[in-house]
Amino acid sequence: MNKKRKLSRGVAVVGAGMSKFDMFKDRDSKDLFAEAFVEMQSSVDKGLDPGDIDALYIGNFTNDFFVHQSHWGPILADALGLAPRPATRIEGACASSALAFREGVFAIASGFYDAVLVGGVEDMSKRSVEEVAEGLALAAIPDERNAGFTFPGIFGAIATAYFERYGASREDLMNITIKSHDNAPLNPKAQYQATICDVMRSKIKRAKEKGGAVPDWSDEKDFLRDPIANPPIAWPMHLFDCCPISDGAACILLVGEEIAKHFTDEPIHVAGIGQASGRGLSAADDLTYFEATRYAAKEAYEMSGFTPADIQFAEVHDCFSIVELLHIEDLGFFEPGESYKAVADGLTRLDGSKPINTSGGLKCKGHPVGATGAAQLIEVWEQLRNKAGDRGVPIKDLRVGAAHNLGGTGGTCTFTILERR
Amino acid sequence: MNKKRKLSRGVAVVGAGMSKFDMFKDRDSKDLFAEAFVEMQSSVDKGLDPGDIDALYIGNFTNDFFVHQSHWGPILADALGLAPRPATRIEGACASSALAFREGVFAIASGFYDAVLVGGVEDMSKRSVEEVAEGLALAAIPDERNAGFTFPGIFGAIATAYFERYGASREDLMNITIKSHDNAPLNPKAQYQATICDVMRSKIKRAKEKGGAVPDWSDEKDFLRDPIANPPIAWPMHLFDCCPISDGAACILLVGEEIAKHFTDEPIHVAGIGQASGRGLSAADDLTYFEATRYAAKEAYEMSGFTPADIQFAEVHDCFSIVELLHIEDLGFFEPGESYKAVADGLTRLDGSKPINTSGGLKCKGHPVGATGAAQLIEVWEQLRNKAGDRGVPIKDLRVGAAHNLGGTGGTCTFTILERR
Repeated sequence: MNKKRKLSRGVAVVGAGMSKFDMFKDRDSKDLFAEAFVEMQSSVDKGLDPGDIDALYIGNFTNDFFVHQSHWGPILADALGLAPRPATRIEGACASSALAFREGVFAIASGFYDAVLVGGVEDMSKRSVEEVAEGLALAAIPDERNAGFTFPGIFGAIATAYFERYGASREDLMNITIKSHDNAPLNPKAQYQATICDVMRSKIKRAKEKGGAVPDWSDEKDFLRDPIANPPIAWPMHLFDCCPISDGAACILLVGEEIAKHFTDEPIHVAGIGQASGRGLSAADDLTYFEATRYAAKEAYEMSGFTPADIQFAEVHDCFSIVELLHIEDLGFFEPGESYKAVADGLTRLDGSKPINTSGGLKCKGHPVGATGAAQLIEVWEQLRNKAGDRGVPIKDLRVGAAHNLGGTGGTCTFTILERR
Repeated sequence: MNKKRKLSRGVAVVGAGMSKFDMFKDRDSKDLFAEAFVEMQSSVDKGLDPGDIDALYIGNFTNDFFVHQSHWGPILADALGLAPRPATRIEGACASSALAFREGVFAIASGFYDAVLVGGVEDMSKRSVEEVAEGLALAAIPDERNAGFTFPGIFGAIATAYFERYGASREDLMNITIKSHDNAPLNPKAQYQATICDVMRSKIKRAKEKGGAVPDWSDEKDFLRDPIANPPIAWPMHLFDCCPISDGAACILLVGEEIAKHFTDEPIHVAGIGQASGRGLSAADDLTYFEATRYAAKEAYEMSGFTPADIQFAEVHDCFSIVELLHIEDLGFFEPGESYKAVADGLTRLDGSKPINTSGGLKCKGHPVGATGAAQLIEVWEQLRNKAGDRGVPIKDLRVGAAHNLGGTGGTCTFTILERR
C-alpha cells in the first residue's frame, strides 16, 4: 500500500436488521432476507421509503451448489419489490457480506448513489453435515483441498502451531468458548441461547431422566475436557471449538454522510475499511498469524486514524476458537503470543477492557456464512447506538467499534471500523 | 431513478487484454486469466508496474459448480503475484464481469484506490453440453426454471413473441448470424473464424470427400434454412442462432482520470454506466423488450449526456440472435419493431451507420460467460484506440462506443459508454 486510503465522501449506517440465526427447515433465502429487510426498515429512526434505495449488494457463498440457484442479486431485489434497481451478488466465501458492505461504501463514496442496501444471506442447514463440510471446503485454497484438509483440520493445524510456538493449550481455547456461550443468551438473534453451565445442567437433567450414569463435571472446563460431551473433530479442535451450521440473513442501509440526518439523528459512520487477499497455508512461513488480516487492519487503521487501542470492542471472525486468538493479535489488540493470556485474564469478556464477540460470535450467534460479515457490523452498530440491551458493552462513552471477517483460510480478510461521532 | 447519476472522480481505461476464446481441454481459470493479464500489461503504452494495482474485481459465474472451487478473488490475485491486494469475486450470471468493471469504477471514483484491475473468466467446456445447459440455467429466475425452460427455450419464446408482434421471421434472425460470422474472422481472438460462406464451402468439400450427396445451397440463407445443416434447438432458435460454449478470460486496467497520462497518452474514458435488475419472463407484460436494459441505458445516457444517436457503435449481448434485435431497440438505436428492418438494410454491419458486434459478438467471438462483459468493453476500447485492425469501424472521428451485457433472462443488465476525448 503506497498511500493513505481515503474516501472522497463519508458514508454512514442509518439502519440495519437481521433474521434470527438458526437452522430452519422451511425458510429459504428470500424468506430470511425479507425478515432482515423488514427489521432494517423499522430500525430507520425517521422512516425509510424503500423507493429511496438506489442499489443492492448481496453477499452469498453457497446458494449455487446448495440450493441450485445462482444470480441472487436480482432475485432478492425482485422479492423486496426493489427491481429494477441494480443488485449485485458478491462472493468472498465466509467474508461475502463484509465485501458487499464495502462495495456499498464505494458506490456511495463515488457520488453515484446516495442510499445502498448491503447484506448477505445463507441457506445451508437443509444439507447434510457431510455436504456442508464438502461445500464450504470450496472456499479453501486449492493446495489445501488437494492435501485433503477440511476446515476443522486446517484450523486444528493452525492451533497446533500456535500451541507449539507460544505455550498455549486447549484450556486456553476453552476460555473463548465459555465467553462466547456467556454472551449469546443476551442476544435474542443468537442460534445458541445457552451458557456452558446451561448445557451442563441440561445434559445432567437428561441423564437423570434416562436413569443412566449422571456426569459429575466440576466446572465448565471439566465439561469441555470430557471427550464424550465435547468430542474431538480434528485435534485440538473439539465440537465446542467449532461454529454451527446456520441459516440467516442480515442487511444494512448505507447513505451519504451528509444526508444521514434525514434518516436518523444517530448515524454511525464508516471510519475505516480494509480488505486483503491471503495465499493460504501452503504459502505461509508461519501458521500463527494471518498476513491478510494484518494488511486489512493496516488499511483500515490508516484510513481512520485510529490505533488498535482506540477500538473499544470488536466482533472478530471465530469460525473456530483458535482463530479468535490469532485475530485479536493480528488486529493489534494484543501482542503476538499474548492473546491467550489476556483471554484467561478476562480482558475480552463483556466486562473486560476489550470485549470481543459480544454477540456470541460465530460460535454461538451462528454462522450463515454469507450473512456473517453484515451481522458482525450490525452488532457493532447496535452497541454504538446503545441498543444492545443486556449485552451492551459497559464502557462509558462507547464511540469506536470494529468488525473483522475472514473468508476461507484467510483468502479474504476484511476489517471495518465504525464510529459514533 | 430520482436524480442524475454522476461520479465525483473520472475513471479511464488505460490497458486491457484477453485470452483467446475457445474450448480448451488443458487450460484452467488461472491459465486463462494469466494470458489476459500478460496481454493487458503489454498494452499499457507507458508500462505498468503490477505493484501499482491497488485491487482486483473478478467476474465469474460457474466455477463453484463446474470446477468445484469457489473464492476465486484471492486465488487469482495470488496466481498473478498480487496478494495481499484485495480481490473480490462478483457473480451476475453472464453479466458478471460488466459488474466487476462497475465496481472497479466505483472503487476509484470513491477516491480510495487509484488503479484497479477488473475482468472475468470462465472455464466451461470441460463439462458436457447437458451439464452446461443445466448449470447456466441456474441464472434464470426460479419461475422460469420451475416451468421447465432452458435458455434456448426462453429465448425461443421471446423470438416467437417478437415475430408475432412485429412481423419479423427467421429470415431476419439469419441476417444477424451472417453479420456476426462476417465480422469474426477479422478478430484473431474469436472462437469461430469462419463466415457462413466459409462454413458452407467446408461442408461441401467434406461431402465431396465422403462421396455422398453434395448440398446445393444457393446462398447463406439457403444454408441456414436447411434443417440438417442448421437444426432447430428450440423453435425458432436453430443452431446458428445460439452462441457456443467457450472458455476465456478478459481484464481491464482502470485508473483515476487525472493520473491516466502516466500510463498512456490515449486513455479511454468511462462516460456512462448503468445497471438494472429484471424480474424475468413470468413478471413481464410484454416479451418483446427488456425493462432492465432500458433502465440501465437510461442511467448511462443520463450520466454521460449522450443520446442513442451519439453511440457510434456498440457491442450488444447476443447469446441468441433474437436478443440482439431486442437490445438494439431497448438501447434506443432503433424504434421498437424496427430493428430487424435496419439489420436487413445492413445498418448494423461493419460498414453500416451503427455497427453492432464488430467483434463477432457472443455468437462468434465466444461466450465464456464471466469474461464476456469485460471482453465486450475491450472491443469498444480497441475500436476507440483504432487498434481493431481489419474490423476497425470505418467511421471518421470514432469517439463514442458502448457495451451492453445481459445476465440470465435479463435479471441483470448493464450498459457502459466509453469515450475518447
